Formats: sequence, C-alpha cells, structure tokens
Amino acid sequence: MRASGGGRARLEPDRGLIVAAPELAIGLISFGPERPLAESVQACARHGIRHVGLTRELVASSGPAEVARMLAGEGIAVTGYARAPRIPTTTGPERAQALSEARRLLDEAATVGAKHLIATGGGFDPAVSTLERAWDAFLEGMHALLPDAAACGVDIVIEPLHPMYAGDRGLVFTLARAAEACDALGLGRGLVVDAYHVWWEPGLADALAAVQGRIAEFHICDWRLPTRGLTDRAMIGEGCIDLAAMARQVRAAGFDGPFELELFSSQDWWLRSPDELLITAIRNFDALVPKSGDA
Amino acid sequence: MRASGGGRARLEPDRGLIVAAPELAIGLISFGPERPLAESVQACARHGIRHVGLTRELVASSGPAEVARMLAGEGIAVTGYARAPRIPTTTGPERAQALSEARRLLDEAATVGAKHLIATGGGFDPAVSTLERAWDAFLEGMHALLPDAAACGVDIVIEPLHPMYAGDRGLVFTLARAAEACDALGLGRGLVVDAYHVWWEPGLADALAAVQGRIAEFHICDWRLPTRGLTDRAMIGEGCIDLAAMARQVRAAGFDGPFELELFSSQDWWLRSPDELLITAIRNFDALVPKSGDA
Repeated sequence: MRASGGGRARLEPDRGLIVAAPELAIGLISFGPERPLAESVQACARHGIRHVGLTRELVASSGPAEVARMLAGEGIAVTGYARAPRIPTTTGPERAQALSEARRLLDEAATVGAKHLIATGGGFDPAVSTLERAWDAFLEGMHALLPDAAACGVDIVIEPLHPMYAGDRGLVFTLARAAEACDALGLGRGLVVDAYHVWWEPGLADALAAVQGRIAEFHICDWRLPTRGLTDRAMIGEGCIDLAAMARQVRAAGFDGPFELELFSSQDWWLRSPDELLITAIRNFDALVPKSGDA
Repeated sequence: MRASGGGRARLEPDRGLIVAAPELAIGLISFGPERPLAESVQACARHGIRHVGLTRELVASSGPAEVARMLAGEGIAVTGYARAPRIPTTTGPERAQALSEARRLLDEAATVGAKHLIATGGGFDPAVSTLERAWDAFLEGMHALLPDAAACGVDIVIEPLHPMYAGDRGLVFTLARAAEACDALGLGRGLVVDAYHVWWEPGLADALAAVQGRIAEFHICDWRLPTRGLTDRAMIGEGCIDLAAMARQVRAAGFDGPFELELFSSQDWWLRSPDELLITAIRNFDALVPKSGDA
C-alpha cells in the first residue's frame, strides 16, 4: 500500500479549485463555530466533499429541517451528530431532563439524516460525583436510550476523547474502554476513532486491531508541537501523528467509510477561509492517505 | 481513615504563619520558573517544609554545589531531580551526546543530594521517528545509564505524564506502561505517580493497587475545570481530582514518603507569593489528606 500520491485531487480549469474524491469527509466544526452553515456546505459542495459531520450547535441556528434541505440540495450525506448530553449521577428530575434532551437530539439527528449520535460521556460535577460514578451513569443512560435510537433509525456510537478533556467533555479515554462501553450496550459497529484523541495510546496498532469490525467513524487531524491549548489541532500532515500508519490500521480493522477531518483550531484554521482549509486538506489527504483499493 | 482535619497545620503566634508537618513536600517549580531559588527555599523553611523537588533549570543559575549548601543550611532534603533528557532514536553522535548529558545530570542530582533522577522520556522528532520507536530508544538509553546511576547513588525513576504532553515532554502515559518500563529496567521502587498526570486513567484504583511497593514519589495538584492550557494546574482541593481517595490508594500501595505538591500554573500560582501558596497548600493538604497513622 502506497503512503502518498493517491491522485484523488484534481485542478478543474473552469473552477480553479482542487476537487476531492469521496474518501474525505469534513466535520463542519472545522470551519469554526461561528461560520454560517450555508457557507460551509457550499464550500464542501464546491470541493467535491460528499459526507459531513454536524454538531448540535451548528444546526441550532437554521434548525434541523432546514439543514436537511440544504444538504440534500447539494447531495451531501451526514455521518455523525455530536453529541449526546452528559447523564448526571443523581437520579430524579436532573437525570430525566438529560434523557429527554438526548431523545430530542436523536430526533434531530434523524431529521438531518445523520447515521450516528456521538456520545463522549460529558463532564461530571466533582462536588457530588467522581469519574467512576459518572461512567456508570453514562452507561445506564445510554442503555435507556437504545430503544429510542432504534425507533429513530440512528445508531448511538461511543467516541473516546483525549484525556485532557476528562472532567469536562469526556468520560471515555481509551479504545479498550470504548470497546467495553460498546460491549455493555450491545453496539456492534459502535466506535468512533479520532486520531487526535487516541494517537498517544501505548500499543496503538494492537488496540486498533482489537476493535476489528467495530469502527463506525474515523476522524482525522494532527497533533501540533508545541500544543498551545485544548482547541489547537493541526491540519493533517502538519503535526506529529503517523496518520498514514493509522489509516492503514483503521482500514485493516474493517472500516470502509470516509475519513473525516475534524479541526478544532481557534488560533489558526478557524480564522481561515473554507476554501483555503479544503484545498490544503485535500492536498495533504492525497499525499498521506492510501487510496481505498491500493495495495 | 479520615479524609479531613489531619491537624498538621498550626498558627505560630511569633511568626503568624501556618507551619507544615513533614508529610508535605514542595516541588520548587511550583513557585514559578523565574523565582530565585534562595527565595523559594527560605519560604519552605519558614513553613516547616522538610523535602523539596528540584528541576535542572532551577538549579542552573546557582549551580548544584551552591544549591546543596543552601538546602543543607535549612535542613531540607531533596526528593527528585527533573529530568533526564530524551534519547534520540538515531545512533551516533546525537545519542552519545544525550547519554553524556544524562550522566552530567546524574552527577548534578548526586551533588544536590537528590534521591532520584526523574525520567519521562521526552519528545521525539516526527520527521525521523514515531512514539513507538522513541519508546524503544528511551528504554535502551535508560538501561545504558543504570551503572552510572548506581555509581552516583541516585535512582532513575519513571514518571508517566499526562497524554497531552505526548510528542513533547513524555513517552510514558499510563501506570501500566511505566511499570512495564520499571520491569524492563529492573527498577524496584521506580515509579513516580503524579495525580495530575494519571487521575483520568480507567480503573485507577486497580492500577494503583497493581504497582504495590513500586511508588518512589507521589506528586499532587489538582485538575482545573475548565483547563486553559498545558500549564494550568490547580491547587490541591481546588479541582476535580478525588485526591483523598488517591492518597489512601497510594498509601495502601506501600508508599510512605511525603506527598509533593507540584504546580505548573502560569496564569495563577506562579504569579502569587511563595507564602500565599504555602499557606493555602498546607491548609488544603490538612483538610484533604489523612495523616499517616490515621486509620
């Protein structure tokens, strides 16, 4: 399998733009939290992107029905919808409210046509809880939502986050722990692998081989050196992650969907234009990631 | 075992300061990288601190012999000396130079009276290496240094860092991986546990029980919510780590040394006075950490 020169990108003389092949998806948060969704969707359409990931915050301003129309008009499909709310460890109204919010998000995910609602666990309140108790509440909450997810036709998927999001956005920090959650919930292809979140794992190649057949999405970006904070992800190919190796390992683990760029980059990419981001992403993707079918 | 009210601190009418018992050590970097070492040492002495941790950068301005005299004059002992250099994956002059630097640091550690030289692995160069290859080079390098360490009377100890330091400062990110390094190097009590670095680990209580008899130092601080960057550690008791539980688990794992506060806090504690930091630390330590011998 070649690690460079996939030959997906091409320059279109009429448009002067590099056009992607369908192996590259874009998480629309990559264009920044303030970017109007219509602008992001049009940029993706211009560059041949066929799949996008959404967040609830990005969808909120237009509403899910309008977002669905916008994407259908461009022939763009939705991968994942981020993200399920945290489930509090306390019972009673607070927990019922979280489950009710999660059910609303499943409905929204179905309306926009997302395949997955992504669950990361969320934070916890150190005054009344601990990481371990929050983990138990998370599994119980996701279990309670499974019938609703089935009714909506949306899969719940589990994404391990980088441990620096512990206490705030995440409860699941390793591939093995995410697979444990999938087992507990009976999720088959229920795991989101994000290169940025798991690249540091000891024995990563073995950990990816161990989740054979279970990867629902593969998110890509790079780890910047030095890293300046929690929203400082680098463009693929511009950090220290061995993405070519991970791409091979994820394909070998049976994932055949598009690779989804997801950039949280408040000091860099969120300040640039969607066209600049996409042209760079497509060029770097082409150099880094072997084409499906290459051997 | 009680989780609060250890009763170590007391107000001394003549000095108006809260005085610690010897269970609390201070990593002197907690006072900031620019603080003159003499000022830090005097503050520790005023507050009854009997053990301090050093970094090579803090020692550099006075030199190790002068630092040793300064500490001996106050009756203060040294725990760990941070930190061994990274060992490059390339062979030849670059590797020889790193080993030579490590030997010089072992000598410095011996001169200041440190018990341990702390090794975290350091970063790696993504242009020529990967995390896995850097890990192998790290183990080989530490192995080559063992005779020098023995000759100096300084133990090499391994500290797993938080995964957000991967690629830059660390190569070891879990207790299990650090124990693996200790096994490979034949280090008995060779593990530094830092609450900030490992608190997120799935199954932390079990992971600490599994390193019974192997903990050489226990570093404490807290995880701030929200965390604003890579030098944003919180004072003990002011974040979301269950430090009382960890303290019990670390004692149960056979560690009987002092608990060492280590704050990297560029936006908060590094800007405050040593006295304010120590008074807060001693008060919070007293409330959080059960006294040795309490049952």
